Amino acid sequence: MDKAKFIDVLSDSTGETAEKAVRAALLQYPDAGVQIRLHTRVRTPEVARPVLERAAQEGALVVFTVVSPELREFVHASTAELNIEAIDLIGSLIVRLGTFLDREPINLPSAMLPLSEEYFRRIEAVEFAVKSDDGKEPRNFKRADIVLVGVSRTSKTPLSTLLAQRGLKVANLPLVLGVPPPLELMEAPQDRVVGLTIGIDQLCEIRQARLRQLGMPSETNYAMREHVRQELDFANRLFAAHPEWPVVDVTKRAIEETAVIILEHLKERDERAKVVRSSLV
Amino acid sequence: MDKAKFIDVLSDSTGETAEKAVRAALLQYPDAGVQIRLHTRVRTPEVARPVLERAAQEGALVVFTVVSPELREFVHASTAELNIEAIDLIGSLIVRLGTFLDREPINLPSAMLPLSEEYFRRIEAVEFAVKSDDGKEPRNFKRADIVLVGVSRTSKTPLSTLLAQRGLKVANLPLVLGVPPPLELMEAPQDRVVGLTIGIDQLCEIRQARLRQLGMPSETNYAMREHVRQELDFANRLFAAHPEWPVVDVTKRAIEETAVIILEHLKERDERAKVVRSSLV
Repeated sequence: MDKAKFIDVLSDSTGETAEKAVRAALLQYPDAGVQIRLHTRVRTPEVARPVLERAAQEGALVVFTVVSPELREFVHASTAELNIEAIDLIGSLIVRLGTFLDREPINLPSAMLPLSEEYFRRIEAVEFAVKSDDGKEPRNFKRADIVLVGVSRTSKTPLSTLLAQRGLKVANLPLVLGVPPPLELMEAPQDRVVGLTIGIDQLCEIRQARLRQLGMPSETNYAMREHVRQELDFANRLFAAHPEWPVVDVTKRAIEETAVIILEHLKERDERAKVVRSSLV
Repeated sequence: MDKAKFIDVLSDSTGETAEKAVRAALLQYPDAGVQIRLHTRVRTPEVARPVLERAAQEGALVVFTVVSPELREFVHASTAELNIEAIDLIGSLIVRLGTFLDREPINLPSAMLPLSEEYFRRIEAVEFAVKSDDGKEPRNFKRADIVLVGVSRTSKTPLSTLLAQRGLKVANLPLVLGVPPPLELMEAPQDRVVGLTIGIDQLCEIRQARLRQLGMPSETNYAMREHVRQELDFANRLFAAHPEWPVVDVTKRAIEETAVIILEHLKERDERAKVVRSSLV
């Protein structure tokens, strides 16, 4: 029973949705020792067929997202004929959306659709985030949708680019012990500033790992508990002086989860703003 | 029949998978005038119930990804009781994976799982990409998994951060007419360099839009057809001199699709490398 198990993810587009869904579901089976093989932009029966035949030979599970109804039908027929375990991830969603919306699908692979305005807005946002990383462009703070503020290793950079992919302009500023933040931070709309904090144990651990990786001694101030404590205190005092900034604790949180918490804060803020336009909570 | 239509996406985690799947499926119904309402980190019946009751009142479709079997059961029961159209996106995938893997699920929301080594590798990669953007750190080229090379507005920055989220270290270098690339590019492993090209019409259009946005006159060299043509020629001559670099055309392609094409090239390269270790194709 030690045979390797394979999951073939087959898509007529980038396969991103299918891969995400399979990985999310697989997290429920840690160490299952299964290997995902991604087959992207599969758009003809000629390309799909060998993938399916190999899956049949190796007893692989096939998970597919195919938008074209002809190809989807072909995959359904082939997996039945070859006796393959197969899961159609998007087919039934498309069909049921059509019923709900009372519409016919256009049946084009999604990545082939024309580029939209929203799409250019996202590119713009990613470039803004990269340019405004690490406090490099404080004058961008006033143009940002979100300004993330926190000590080193509170996930500011990956959070910024992840939120940017949703079209939000994000700048970030590292807090360094004893260095007052630039004036531009106080001049930015204060309801767009978000503080990031983290537990001292995890922060020391991350910073020590970081130093090891850089080949530096772990007894530098950067990772010494007393220094880290002072730096976190410094950040927390700044946050306490600005009760209008939401503060998010990133300890043991995946970037994706922290991003969602920040988006929830923004949503609340916007709803509050609708009720009382002029008040700063 | 002009009533607004709503889709409530409900998740006990970040809702990313569900939202991606729904948006992908919705692309098949352009201008459907439907509004997605995202409900993230819904982890108790008390939080889920009001969302479902509102969906029932407004005739909304409910799409859910709930990992906890108790909550999933609650959502199933409630949607049946309230007569709501509902789609369980991940439940059947989890159940069928369990059968395939012959395992029991651990039933924890995915974002609550401990941080893995792969996770830290991704953060590292995003930071590398941000630091190595726009030719800022040519000495990083030799440490990069991919070095993207192309003229201005060929999506280098968004591509870099997107690939970085998959754990790849990506640097990028803008090609500017008449400026020879830095020596570091030739010193980097040549099978990691990827050229980006784009059709002249789309490039002129994008650059003109860019200038408008910056409030600059559209008759600057940057967007003038003759100059753009010379710059593309310059890039293409460089690519021709390095036939070992794959060249990807980004014209009318979504970033996600270009990223997948680059990943396909890398996969092919690695497979070739396995066969003939020493040859440079």
